[in-house]
Amino acid sequence: MEQSVLQELAAIVAPQPLLTQPEELLVYECDGHTLDKAPPDVVVFPTNTEQVIAIVKLASRHGVPFVARGAGTGLSGGALALEGGIVIEMCRMNKILEIDYGNQRAVVQPGLVNLHLSLAVADGGFYYAPDPSSQGSCTIGGNVAENSGGPHTLKYGVTTNHVLGLEVVLPNGDLVHFGGAILDTPGYDLTGLFVGSEGTFGIVTSVTVRIMRKPQAVKTLLAFFETVEAASNAVSGIISAGIIPAALEMMDNLTIQAVEAAIQAGLPLDAGALLLIELDGIEDGMEADAQRISDICQQNDCQNVRVAQDDAERALLWKGRKEAFGAIGRLTPNYYTHDGVIPRTRLPEALTRLQLISHRYGLRIANVFHAGDGNLHPLVLYDERDSEEVERVLKAGHDILQACVDLGGVLSGEHGIGLEKKNCMSWLFSEADLDVMRRVREVFNPQELCNPNKVIPLRGRCRCGAVTHDDTPDHETHEAVAAAMQDAHVHA
Amino acid sequence: MEQSVLQELAAIVAPQPLLTQPEELLVYECDGHTLDKAPPDVVVFPTNTEQVIAIVKLASRHGVPFVARGAGTGLSGGALALEGGIVIEMCRMNKILEIDYGNQRAVVQPGLVNLHLSLAVADGGFYYAPDPSSQGSCTIGGNVAENSGGPHTLKYGVTTNHVLGLEVVLPNGDLVHFGGAILDTPGYDLTGLFVGSEGTFGIVTSVTVRIMRKPQAVKTLLAFFETVEAASNAVSGIISAGIIPAALEMMDNLTIQAVEAAIQAGLPLDAGALLLIELDGIEDGMEADAQRISDICQQNDCQNVRVAQDDAERALLWKGRKEAFGAIGRLTPNYYTHDGVIPRTRLPEALTRLQLISHRYGLRIANVFHAGDGNLHPLVLYDERDSEEVERVLKAGHDILQACVDLGGVLSGEHGIGLEKKNCMSWLFSEADLDVMRRVREVFNPQELCNPNKVIPLRGRCRCGAVTHDDTPDHETHEAVAAAMQDAHVHA
Repeated sequence: MEQSVLQELAAIVAPQPLLTQPEELLVYECDGHTLDKAPPDVVVFPTNTEQVIAIVKLASRHGVPFVARGAGTGLSGGALALEGGIVIEMCRMNKILEIDYGNQRAVVQPGLVNLHLSLAVADGGFYYAPDPSSQGSCTIGGNVAENSGGPHTLKYGVTTNHVLGLEVVLPNGDLVHFGGAILDTPGYDLTGLFVGSEGTFGIVTSVTVRIMRKPQAVKTLLAFFETVEAASNAVSGIISAGIIPAALEMMDNLTIQAVEAAIQAGLPLDAGALLLIELDGIEDGMEADAQRISDICQQNDCQNVRVAQDDAERALLWKGRKEAFGAIGRLTPNYYTHDGVIPRTRLPEALTRLQLISHRYGLRIANVFHAGDGNLHPLVLYDERDSEEVERVLKAGHDILQACVDLGGVLSGEHGIGLEKKNCMSWLFSEADLDVMRRVREVFNPQELCNPNKVIPLRGRCRCGAVTHDDTPDHETHEAVAAAMQDAHVHA
Repeated sequence: MEQSVLQELAAIVAPQPLLTQPEELLVYECDGHTLDKAPPDVVVFPTNTEQVIAIVKLASRHGVPFVARGAGTGLSGGALALEGGIVIEMCRMNKILEIDYGNQRAVVQPGLVNLHLSLAVADGGFYYAPDPSSQGSCTIGGNVAENSGGPHTLKYGVTTNHVLGLEVVLPNGDLVHFGGAILDTPGYDLTGLFVGSEGTFGIVTSVTVRIMRKPQAVKTLLAFFETVEAASNAVSGIISAGIIPAALEMMDNLTIQAVEAAIQAGLPLDAGALLLIELDGIEDGMEADAQRISDICQQNDCQNVRVAQDDAERALLWKGRKEAFGAIGRLTPNYYTHDGVIPRTRLPEALTRLQLISHRYGLRIANVFHAGDGNLHPLVLYDERDSEEVERVLKAGHDILQACVDLGGVLSGEHGIGLEKKNCMSWLFSEADLDVMRRVREVFNPQELCNPNKVIPLRGRCRCGAVTHDDTPDHETHEAVAAAMQDAHVHA
């Protein structure tokens, strides 16, 4: 990048410094998708919308590629500066601007950490529903880019169901507003279009989200099964019974072993699978629902059902689920996280296909996933120092995605297409379908400078990485929430 | 239109005839928005996707405008052939193509009547959630165009929350697929963008929708209040208590009088307002919730709470709500239905503003609306033979929309912008915002032949009409459902 551009950039954010040294840029050369790396030329930290506009206009004027980045927890390479240029790091724009309890909404900056919003409104009796496993570190802006989900997606939907409006800096520097403060604002649904556009349509500088009242009661059950097939049948049984749990998560034996080693929650190491089932809502009737679920599990050869007796035990069970990815790190130097989705009724077939793929390539595959949604997260264990093994991992990944699509599913439930799976998009969409997507992108991003070369396929290759995180609110977190709330307007 | 184009058109659908005689075209010169009229040159009834493609290609080649039409129940003029040309009437494409109970979805043609889908899956224990008051006649394709809501929107969301995938004929005749059989298919969310695009992005020829399991139990309450303010406060109280009813509807005194005259449900004629409150879900705990709602109503000066004792009484209460628009016809030769939305906490202010507008223009305004969503439906009563009164009605309509926007709301909750409110869009969106919408439309509709001159503002005028309907399933309806199901694949 030309020195004069760097000087202009520095002037925009002065006295905040730029990062330009190779050792400083190292951490920005990849995100949670660690298999591909591409360092930016510079990292800049805007603190307000005007700076974002000025940076984007500068980049546009000089034809320099740029990509917005939140916490870098994304799993599909969406935050990689694939063609170099500027990483616009949004973490300094992390304020809560407004909370309106009466109308159940909040306005936040994109760099706000997901969990911090829930913590900020907790005393008001509210929370923000989308809860990626990385919610302790990932940002709302990143969630908007990837249309993130989480365990509670089953009942409450993904990010797009919780975003009312957006303030966006377009790739030409224009500031626009999509949606508003009301759900389903009239006109073309550009809010819905922007959510999940993976950073290729512009940079969001403010997000109006729904906040939800915390449920009156929550009940968390763990059911242990001899086989994943039995657990899959229980999932079908629960859904068929017309029960919609708040969460319905599965872990297989390999994951159970890793999690138990990490958190010592007393999980039986010989169980073939466990279901983590959470009910929420009105207290009355919840006991009866829990009993129905327990009965359905028993009818499907459940070994044992354990009910969390208090908040501490519930937190421990969730800690096991949310840190499962990290716990897998005890079993392997590296692992590769997939995100395929299959119709829920094909769950047993899908798991059989995963076993076959595991045997075919001689690779261990751990499964921890959103069973209620059919959203699989197969983790392929490997050692990146073994290049032959890496090759097998990539082939296995290809076969996993192919299996999902063969079963009537899709490539991604919540991690995005990014860099990782763009070349598989043609498995789902015709050239005509993809061409409409390309032309819509050109409206927003005609110079293709804004997160270039993502989402839409160019040529074929598929692979991925992973990230660990911790969502326990600690002292530092509380301070961060307090700072975020500093200028917030709160309406009772 | 040139005779040769008509001949080509006739050949595409032969032996089905075209409608071209002025008396045949009369019924197509407006939709539920009766204040504007524009006759098409011809009406054509395609029976399959190939015919739709051929018709659209013909129109594109000859530069002839075209607009798809369902049942014509739309309330914002979306189905008007504003610039003449071809009305493509989709009512013959009314089949259910597939039902997959296990994965809770169905594939239907756009001309299928909304209620017919619910009736078709009722025996399987399912229903289709979005339920416009016109559900007995409006079509799924029209619902997709307008992103229709209904009384149960409060809990279950609008059409966009229930559409998984679309087959679309683009305005150039290309056949494309958006989304798929899985919720939140990856890539740009063109499904979400298309839903609510009011027929300006192409013609949908197949829709994959979610179907939902019927709730185990339903409880319907009517609460009567002396004033709309008291009823509004009860609405706030219910929502603040963390209860999300399946529906939370309000009627004011004028509407109560009209409905009682129409259906003799024993409504007290002196009540200032009533709330129709429906709970659904698990039977256990519902009684307790109903009691909580009843208590909240009592705390807000409720005169009386009545609980439907059986399905017949519940059906009668809903008949009153769903036919309220028709019942208003007893009070007035004409009425003009608005659809503004305000933040729920501003409900009392909004109703006061409506009273002021009523007095200002010397016009009666009846209110029947989705109180839980803040989605108002003020009905302005008038006589179209009195042109001076019509002028006042138009001015009152302007003021009503302005009041909604002033209070932080929007122009439309579920009826669309169409022809009616396009000139008010600049109240909500800047020129830059609208320009993005225009450019996105150009991707789909570059010749501006597909439902031209709708949604986006050109110049300023705002008005509207209404429609009546009947959603009681009768013999004819059952036959229509059976016919729609004829070739459906049903998966247990």
